[in-house]
Parts: sequence; C-alpha cells; structure tokens
Amino acid sequence: MVNVAVMGYGTVGSGVVEVIETNGKKIDKRAGMHVKIKYVLDLRDFPGDPIQEKIIHDFETIINDDEIKIVVEVMGGVEPAYTFVKRCLQAGKSVVTSNKALVAKHGAELLEIARTNNINFLFEASVGGGIPIIRPLNSSLTADEIEEITGILNGTTNYMLSKMFYEDADYDTVLKEAQANGYAEADPTADVEGYDACRKIAILSSLVSGQQVDFEDIYTEGISKITADDFKYAKAMGMTVKLLAMAKREGEQLQAIVAPFLLGVNHPLYNVNDVFNAIFVRGNVLGDAMFYGSGAGKLPTASAVVADIVDAAKHLHRTIMIDWTSEKRKLQDREKMKRKFFVRIKGNAEQLKPDLEADFGEMKIVSAGLDGEFGFITGMMTEGEYEEKAKGYADIVHMIRVET
Amino acid sequence: MVNVAVMGYGTVGSGVVEVIETNGKKIDKRAGMHVKIKYVLDLRDFPGDPIQEKIIHDFETIINDDEIKIVVEVMGGVEPAYTFVKRCLQAGKSVVTSNKALVAKHGAELLEIARTNNINFLFEASVGGGIPIIRPLNSSLTADEIEEITGILNGTTNYMLSKMFYEDADYDTVLKEAQANGYAEADPTADVEGYDACRKIAILSSLVSGQQVDFEDIYTEGISKITADDFKYAKAMGMTVKLLAMAKREGEQLQAIVAPFLLGVNHPLYNVNDVFNAIFVRGNVLGDAMFYGSGAGKLPTASAVVADIVDAAKHLHRTIMIDWTSEKRKLQDREKMKRKFFVRIKGNAEQLKPDLEADFGEMKIVSAGLDGEFGFITGMMTEGEYEEKAKGYADIVHMIRVET
Repeated sequence: MVNVAVMGYGTVGSGVVEVIETNGKKIDKRAGMHVKIKYVLDLRDFPGDPIQEKIIHDFETIINDDEIKIVVEVMGGVEPAYTFVKRCLQAGKSVVTSNKALVAKHGAELLEIARTNNINFLFEASVGGGIPIIRPLNSSLTADEIEEITGILNGTTNYMLSKMFYEDADYDTVLKEAQANGYAEADPTADVEGYDACRKIAILSSLVSGQQVDFEDIYTEGISKITADDFKYAKAMGMTVKLLAMAKREGEQLQAIVAPFLLGVNHPLYNVNDVFNAIFVRGNVLGDAMFYGSGAGKLPTASAVVADIVDAAKHLHRTIMIDWTSEKRKLQDREKMKRKFFVRIKGNAEQLKPDLEADFGEMKIVSAGLDGEFGFITGMMTEGEYEEKAKGYADIVHMIRVET
Repeated sequence: MVNVAVMGYGTVGSGVVEVIETNGKKIDKRAGMHVKIKYVLDLRDFPGDPIQEKIIHDFETIINDDEIKIVVEVMGGVEPAYTFVKRCLQAGKSVVTSNKALVAKHGAELLEIARTNNINFLFEASVGGGIPIIRPLNSSLTADEIEEITGILNGTTNYMLSKMFYEDADYDTVLKEAQANGYAEADPTADVEGYDACRKIAILSSLVSGQQVDFEDIYTEGISKITADDFKYAKAMGMTVKLLAMAKREGEQLQAIVAPFLLGVNHPLYNVNDVFNAIFVRGNVLGDAMFYGSGAGKLPTASAVVADIVDAAKHLHRTIMIDWTSEKRKLQDREKMKRKFFVRIKGNAEQLKPDLEADFGEMKIVSAGLDGEFGFITGMMTEGEYEEKAKGYADIVHMIRVET
C-alpha cells in the first residue's frame, strides 16, 4: 500500500479523489499496490462530505508523516505551492502536480531535488490536461530529435475562436458566453492574453531542449485583438485562426512564440475545436504526429494526475529520467523568425499592389467584402523585416501570422 | 554500453540502423548508455555496404553471445520469428519487435517468458507504426477504464479510400495507383481485406482487457466491395468511408470488429487521410483522446522500434508491466452488436418507404443521383436484426455500417 496526500480540494483535487474512488481496482492493479488517499490539505472544511475525515489544515502533518510517500499538489499558483513541493521532495516524498506555473518556473530545480533523493517529480497534467504528452516526450519519442512542437494548449481561447469561426460572432460576445459557461474566468487575462499557453510551451520547450526555457523570454500575444472581420478574411482564404504555442528548431537555434495564427485546412490542428487541445510534434525520424484530447476539465486533468500517481508508486525509489537541467537556453530573437504574414490594409488594392509587392513580395489580394480595405499574404520574411516594411504603411488595420 | 542484434535487414531493419546512426548521441543519452548494434542477421550479403561487417547468417551466433542483451526482431511473419524470439527471451535477452502477426498470435506467452526472466518483450511498432499507442496505454492511461478504442490502423487502405473520396476514383484504379506508389503490395489481400488491421486491433483489445483476444474471433470485412457509387452517397450525406478497427466495452461485454464504416464530419477520425493512421481512445475519466501519425514507413516505424530499444536498455533487469495474460477473452457475438446501417436498394423510394420504415425504423431517404436506386440509414438495431430484416429485400445493392 502507498499513502498519498492531496494538497488542494478544488476542481482537480476533488477530481483526483473521484477518479481513485471510481477506478480504484484498476488503479491498484496498475500500480502494483493499493493506492490510498490519507490526507487532503485544504483551508476549508467540508462538513457532511465523506472527504471531511481526511481533511487537514496544517501542511506540517504531511511533512511529519513518514507513511506519506506521494504528495499531489493541485493548489495552483507559485506560492505556497513551491515551498510545499520543495519541502516534500527534500523530505523524500515524490510529488505529482498539475501546476503549470510552478513547473514552468521551478521545474528544473524540483527535478534535480527529486533526482538527488531517488524519487520523482511528475507533471503530466500541467500541459494538455488529460492528453498524454509529457510522458510520450520522455519515454516514447526517445529515438527522435524533436524539430517542432506546436500546440493548441488553451481550451478557453480555442472555445472562443471556434465560436467566432462557426457563428460569425464577435470577440466580446464569445467571451461573455465563455464566462457564462464556466469556460472563462471573471478575469480572463491569463487565458485570452496567452499567459497560460506561454507557460505550457515553456515547459514543452524545456523538455525538448533539455535545458531551461524561461517563459518570460517567449514572445506572447493573445487573441483579444482578433475580430469578426478577421474571420471573414480567414474564411475567404479557406483558413481559420487558432492561438498556437510553438517551439521550433532552426539549425542550432530554438525559437518559441505564442500568438494567433492563420491555419490552412490541411494543417492537422485546423480541425481541433471547442475546448479540445492538441499537440502537433515533428520528429526528425518519426515525421508528424499529433496528440488530441481534453485539455482541461476536472476528470480529464485528474486522469493525468492519477496516472502520475501510479507511475510514482511503481517507481518509489527510482527516478524516472526526465531530461531538463537548469542550464538556461537562449531563444532565437523574435525579429529573426521567418514566416508569412497576413495583412489587412485600408485603401485601393489595385493602386497599392505595386508598392506592396515591392516591399512584401508577390502576393494574392484577398477580399472579404469589407468597405475600403483588403487583405494580402506576404512572402516569407523575418518578423524584423516585416516590421521595418510595415512602418511605411500607416493604414495597416491588422496583421496575423500565417502558419504554413 | 549495451549490445544489440537486429534480425532482418529489410525496410524496418535498415531503418533501425539508420535511426541509431542519425540520432545516436541523443539515443545514448536517453538510454543512459551507448547503444551499439553488434550483429545484423540476414540471409543475404550486402557487399560494399558498411553494414556487411555486422552481417551474420546464423541465428545461433546471437543466442551464444552473452554480450547481446537486446534483440530486435523485424523479419515479419510468425515463423521463424516466433521460435527465434522465444529462444532469445528464454536465454535472458530482451526482445523488441514490430511484428504484429507474431504479437497478436503469441504476445501473451512471450510477455510471460519475459516476466519470468526479469527482462522485456516490447512491441510499440507493431500497431500504428510511429504513433506511440502501446506505451501510452500501458503507462499513461493507467487511471482509466478504456471504454473504446477505434483506429484507422492500415495506411494502404486509408490511402485508397482517401483517393476514392477526393478524386471520385473507383476501387480498381486506386488499387493500381497504390501498387504503383509502393503503398500496396502485388498481392494486396492482407491490407484490403482487413487482415492487417484485424491483428492490430486484436493486440489493442488484448491490452485493453488484460486478456487474450484471438484475432480469429474478430469479424473482419475489407474494403474491396466499396465502390465509387458508395462514395457518392457518402458525400451526399456529408460523410466519408473509413476502414475502422474497433473495440468497445458494452457493460461486461467486449466487442471487436474490422469493417468499412460511414463517418460524419464531426468524428475525430473523419479527417485522417492518405497513409496516416490514427487511434481514437475513450476513457471513463479521460474522455476522448486521439493519437495521430505515420502508421507505417521505414523511419517512423524504426523510430518506434528504437524507442523500445531505449526502454529495454533502461530496464535491463526489470520487467515493464504490461497487463496481458493468456486467459482467453470471449468477445460479444457480432449478431448482438448494435448500430445503424446505411443501405442502398433498387426501386422507387416512395413506394418502398412504408415497408422499409416498418422493418428498419424511421429514416431519411438519400439520393446520390443514381438511376433506379436510393439509400437510407436504419435506426439503431443489432447486426442480427438487420440481417433478418434484410433477407426480405432481394434488391439491396450494398450495406455499409455507420459509426455515430
């Protein structure tokens, strides 16, 4: 038998308890031992709920109980999660977490402490909710150099963009709907401005490079400036708009970005809709692969947490190799990343085309039936070149990057 | 350092050598030791090829060399692969294979021998080529009861069906194209009649149930009766036709089938085209997930084989748990499986509709502009009920199952 403490009885924490109750027999068989939740740490009490008998309010109870071999951190936020997790690992207890902020910020250090103590720090649920991606990266794609990893990693914004696409709705309307349905929070900043996706791609980039990619270094742009008119152009081109979190190798360089991108119908991520997440991976021998599923939600996320508990139980005194050191990985400057850009501009297409082609390369003019403006897609150029050229055009309405 | 012997220098075998040469540094780091190919067993010689110095013709060389800790079996076919693999495992050498026929037939027994000897029998590449699916089932989806696993598991037939859909081509034309492009063999029976997909879903069903699902027990129907006219109906309904290999739980029952199915645009497998494979998994807490990638091909398959070599190297004296015993799992009778059926029938729709609705339930008549016939989709009924009712209609042209 292995005793587990769960820190935080919110959505994911109560999901973990529910999953272990629902599938206990199967889980015990997979773990090779009985998995028992001994404590649930929460500031609140839950009178009348069967969980109440396991509720504790003092973190020290966990630290001081030698029977606790696995601690589940599902409180969220960097503090006090970081302090608690670090102390658990130092005390020889494996930790499983779903906390992307904690992992992005302190993953390398916490992995190192786990390694020193022959225990585990596991975080499958921190990226992609229920989608297995961390473990496949560490244990399935081991024959490959990963050349690209591009994800739709935030369910809230994908729900919103899907609505804008299918219902021709505008941003404010879909945000209100997302909030009404519980898909977006009252303060939606972390989702809509891309901060959530940024931390997740920082984690994936670190695993791909084996070094520390700081999320602060990743250029991040959200979806709050995407309009119903942008989608008119997207549809006119047979494309859609998705918030992509992307890491790519270019020679020795590693680049990472979070931004809305135009995607064509043949891209594997084109059809990933609603709150679903998906992660596209390109390996140098594997070729293209994609992992798709529920990126959030109580039970899918809990499913990933419990799978980590099973793995921690199977490896109680043996560290599962995860290649991520604290050596800082410098990213390629955004100005040097190459791509195509879709540009909306005011004016007359025929008059402007010669100048635009001189600056941005051969282009096809796109009309979405909007008065006094048109759109075009540039040739391949760096972000820096684009910005330099764009300075010459005061009438640019909006630019959206194109993923080809 | 770990010494590896590769049995078979065909497409996959040469791919394994190439992957280890290309990504050797990364692979050694992941394995925690140098992975060295010491022997390649093949009947042929390869004069002038650098591999020649490792070529051996006698299997006994491998068995008698105590330095060989991992043997890669990529010969294909049940014999002599079975005899060789069994002897290797009995001699305490871990075995990695891509051989679906071997795994489907003898997987449970070979796993048991590996377990007894504290070594490993690994077969990620036997299903889905480069797509990680076996390892995720064993180590990532451990918190779930898997309720359904449905795959497009054969690239040849998916290429053919995609061509038929996109180019309105007929079966014979696309088969010839597939043969000309090297996607189909001169004798295409194993692919087009579904035998290949059948063995793969037998492996997945065994892993999902933890018991032995015999491929001979799985009802298997290929694509050789699918016509260009069938696709006219599919398009008229906004659907497509895919060869699905499916295992589902229904209460205590497990059902499995391989057959062409009509799929709607919202099904995650609808957009899986060309030679790509994909595997849809539904877990009772995870919800829906999908794994997508190259289901065949030299390097993708070799990528999965080499990932298994890495895992075998990391677990030289420790068996990775794979839940598959030789206890036979009885499948639900096909006659009792419930679904909807699409039926093409000769005659006048208005005249026949009352009788058809009395037998098959309320229906919408579908026209694809074909003279003297029409189509309809039945209500939910068992396969047995459908067959019984269909006997009353001599003019049925074709039936295709519908996946909803």
